Amino acid sequence: MKLRELKVRLAEVFDLNMANDLLSWDQSTYMPPGGAAARGRQLATIGKLAHQKATDAEVGALLDDLRPYEQSLPADADDAALIRVARRGYEQLACVPADLIGAIYAHSAASYDAWGRARPANDFAAVRPYLERTLELRRRLANCFPGYQHIADPLIDMSDYGMRAESVRAIFAELRAELVPLAQAICAQPLADDACLRQGFPEAQQLAFGERIIRSFGYDFSRGRQDKTRHPFMTKFSLGDVRITTRVCEDDLSDALFSTLHESGHAMYEQGIDLSFEGTPLASGTSAGVHESQSRLWENLVGRSRRMWQHFYPQLQAEFPAQLGAVSLDTFYRAINKVQRSLIRTDADEVTYNLHVMLRFDLELALLEGRLEVKDLPEAWNTRYLADLGVAPPNDSAGVMQDVHWYSGGIGGAFQGYTLGNILSAQFYATARAAHPEIDAEISQGRFDTLHAWLRENIYRHGSKFTTDELVQRVTGGPLSSAPYMAYLRTKYGELYQL
Amino acid sequence: MKLRELKVRLAEVFDLNMANDLLSWDQSTYMPPGGAAARGRQLATIGKLAHQKATDAEVGALLDDLRPYEQSLPADADDAALIRVARRGYEQLACVPADLIGAIYAHSAASYDAWGRARPANDFAAVRPYLERTLELRRRLANCFPGYQHIADPLIDMSDYGMRAESVRAIFAELRAELVPLAQAICAQPLADDACLRQGFPEAQQLAFGERIIRSFGYDFSRGRQDKTRHPFMTKFSLGDVRITTRVCEDDLSDALFSTLHESGHAMYEQGIDLSFEGTPLASGTSAGVHESQSRLWENLVGRSRRMWQHFYPQLQAEFPAQLGAVSLDTFYRAINKVQRSLIRTDADEVTYNLHVMLRFDLELALLEGRLEVKDLPEAWNTRYLADLGVAPPNDSAGVMQDVHWYSGGIGGAFQGYTLGNILSAQFYATARAAHPEIDAEISQGRFDTLHAWLRENIYRHGSKFTTDELVQRVTGGPLSSAPYMAYLRTKYGELYQL
Repeated sequence: MKLRELKVRLAEVFDLNMANDLLSWDQSTYMPPGGAAARGRQLATIGKLAHQKATDAEVGALLDDLRPYEQSLPADADDAALIRVARRGYEQLACVPADLIGAIYAHSAASYDAWGRARPANDFAAVRPYLERTLELRRRLANCFPGYQHIADPLIDMSDYGMRAESVRAIFAELRAELVPLAQAICAQPLADDACLRQGFPEAQQLAFGERIIRSFGYDFSRGRQDKTRHPFMTKFSLGDVRITTRVCEDDLSDALFSTLHESGHAMYEQGIDLSFEGTPLASGTSAGVHESQSRLWENLVGRSRRMWQHFYPQLQAEFPAQLGAVSLDTFYRAINKVQRSLIRTDADEVTYNLHVMLRFDLELALLEGRLEVKDLPEAWNTRYLADLGVAPPNDSAGVMQDVHWYSGGIGGAFQGYTLGNILSAQFYATARAAHPEIDAEISQGRFDTLHAWLRENIYRHGSKFTTDELVQRVTGGPLSSAPYMAYLRTKYGELYQL
Repeated sequence: MKLRELKVRLAEVFDLNMANDLLSWDQSTYMPPGGAAARGRQLATIGKLAHQKATDAEVGALLDDLRPYEQSLPADADDAALIRVARRGYEQLACVPADLIGAIYAHSAASYDAWGRARPANDFAAVRPYLERTLELRRRLANCFPGYQHIADPLIDMSDYGMRAESVRAIFAELRAELVPLAQAICAQPLADDACLRQGFPEAQQLAFGERIIRSFGYDFSRGRQDKTRHPFMTKFSLGDVRITTRVCEDDLSDALFSTLHESGHAMYEQGIDLSFEGTPLASGTSAGVHESQSRLWENLVGRSRRMWQHFYPQLQAEFPAQLGAVSLDTFYRAINKVQRSLIRTDADEVTYNLHVMLRFDLELALLEGRLEVKDLPEAWNTRYLADLGVAPPNDSAGVMQDVHWYSGGIGGAFQGYTLGNILSAQFYATARAAHPEIDAEISQGRFDTLHAWLRENIYRHGSKFTTDELVQRVTGGPLSSAPYMAYLRTKYGELYQL
């Protein structure tokens, strides 16, 4: 009875959050420019209401009343998990004043809008005041949780529960020690030739081909759709409506294709959550890191494998005979796995990608600590790119303004999940292939049933029931480890670059 | 100070309602089928919250406190109108229990979804229980306002403030007495030939041409957009974001074209509202009837005039040379003004259109009174179509299931506005042309500035500041009258059919 009451209240919060996500999706896909000002206010209004409802004292009282019931259940019972995760969310949100939530929503929308205009104009000065205000708001948000070791800890915890600046730094340092020499060894070799990807590929055909692949992966279009945006993302309005977006460059085949595979991984995770969790805090992926592991698994471990393209490449050639008819599978495979020092994170190869992430993470910490000021951010960015990637951004659009995250209100906690996801993707994938060695052969025939079913059974359906640590332990039998990821990179790129 | 407090509360309600309108727009345009169940719940959640916020006792107290200030102002001061219209809305909503509002929202979404599936399948049995529930909910809603003369009165009042079943019946009877003989006289003549409209017209070209016309009307695409739906409509998420939808038949040029002109009329009304009204109850058209007068004015009085096509027809021929190159302007003009006994309201010509509306209005009243049961509705519909229009629907899809209104929760008050709008469109247009005789010549040159500016100045900018009666009096110097409308029909169709 009390549980039912709690679920009614949680569903109300869920619905408000989903309405806000629709307001955001619309803002990025179809909203005309004139809608921007009111949209910011609307996001703030609904966000504040959702926050009020989520932190209502009645919710706290219900969670207290439910403690004996929760303790009478096994820890992995659905109801126990629901109460536990709801309490965690309640305790977190209750620390944040509603006004701050409203200010964050309103500012994020305004900042996103300003970035949308400033980026094509390469105008960092136009977004600088927004970024300064974002930083101020994020500091205020972090300071709602006194007692942290590092000011970024509460922000990291919101997206990757259980992680802290120190633990992320330790994981990153370990990975970096192995990654930098590998990247250097590869970059000393001649560059792969990816000219085959840089031809004219009409938009409609690109979209149709990407959708054909993700349909075979198991993305369910009756419970989703794909639209175009400036910056690809996945969003969800219920477990029956999980959408993805992409952007298309008609002179680059890889941009839309791999973003589609990537976002489909996020979306299949959400589509696979136990339907009985609908309307509760369990009905979403458990952390940024685990979410990213699912997108990277499909984008890279499956989507950039020679195996998968053994099946799909002849179809791709048939779709684009003039462009690819004379290009061999081997050339194509090398092209989509070209490693190089590059400027843009979302275009980066698997080997250097994490260097893009780590520098953003370090810059975020520096901003939050106050060691770095927003006005000095472009220079710090450029210096670090030269040091880590060996390239200097020609302008801020291709530099510090390339990613949406900081410009939609998310300084701190926005980036570590990408690298945690890479690490986890290899760990999960190795476990799946060990349990089902037939997965490799199936993929070379364009079949993904066994892999999808394994992910659904072991990861997707649980939603937020288990924390990242619990899930990794449960699925792989051990803690998070970058060893499978490094082994994967060494094998794949050792072969590709004859190291 | 109190006024500012009131405005903050009104803006919150406005934002919730706009979020709900976005949920509805998305439901009709892009939502995948899997999203339907949760969408109904979300609409209900937000609708209930908007209702709670709108009927908060604090709002009532503020409205009381503001009475002296209101009375100190001239009646046509913006602030006085704002307080007056807000009070009217508050008093109306406060009579309706929040649970009923929630039930109506949830049921409307479910019913709309069922209709979407049942209509193509021609399955009235599938929607019958939804319609019965709708009728029950509408009766409960009407009964929140005891003391009415007719059970439909409170429902009519919600869309056409100040109107009642009796007053509408009187207006309709007067119009009908003149309209029926005119329709009969025309239908005794040979049918116009509209074969030129029933050729192959590719969708993208149709959409682009319609958009070209409404851009010249003055519809502002930087504050709006057009998408495709089953049933065309206009919706608004703020005064800076007023959208329209259409549907396209590739073998019928007139369907999308005139629905686009129609919806642009609704949208220009909303886009033209004084921006200082944003976020208040003044920021929307004042009634269904006045709204429809604006859509019909652009669709029919302008959009089906020989004058306008003198300018646009050569462009249309250039767009579709194979289809229209050999068709004269006169033939085209006769085709788009073909009068005939027909089945579908939205396709009906100007002369018979109101007969479609009047029979729906009568059936609504019969349902609400209990004189007619839902199970007998298809038969009553078909009988009345045969009597009034001389045609018998071959099935329910082309009959009782053709319009969305009853199937999205709106039995009672849904239809009278269409005919009131026709009447008003001619009354307003005659006034505009009398004030600015140059309008005719401008239109024949594809220019609409003077007309648009007059409408903005006299109608659009006021939003809901004046009631229908006040506005008609203010603009035309007299009360609502069907004389200009009948004069318009007689002149136009007398010439076309040589009566």
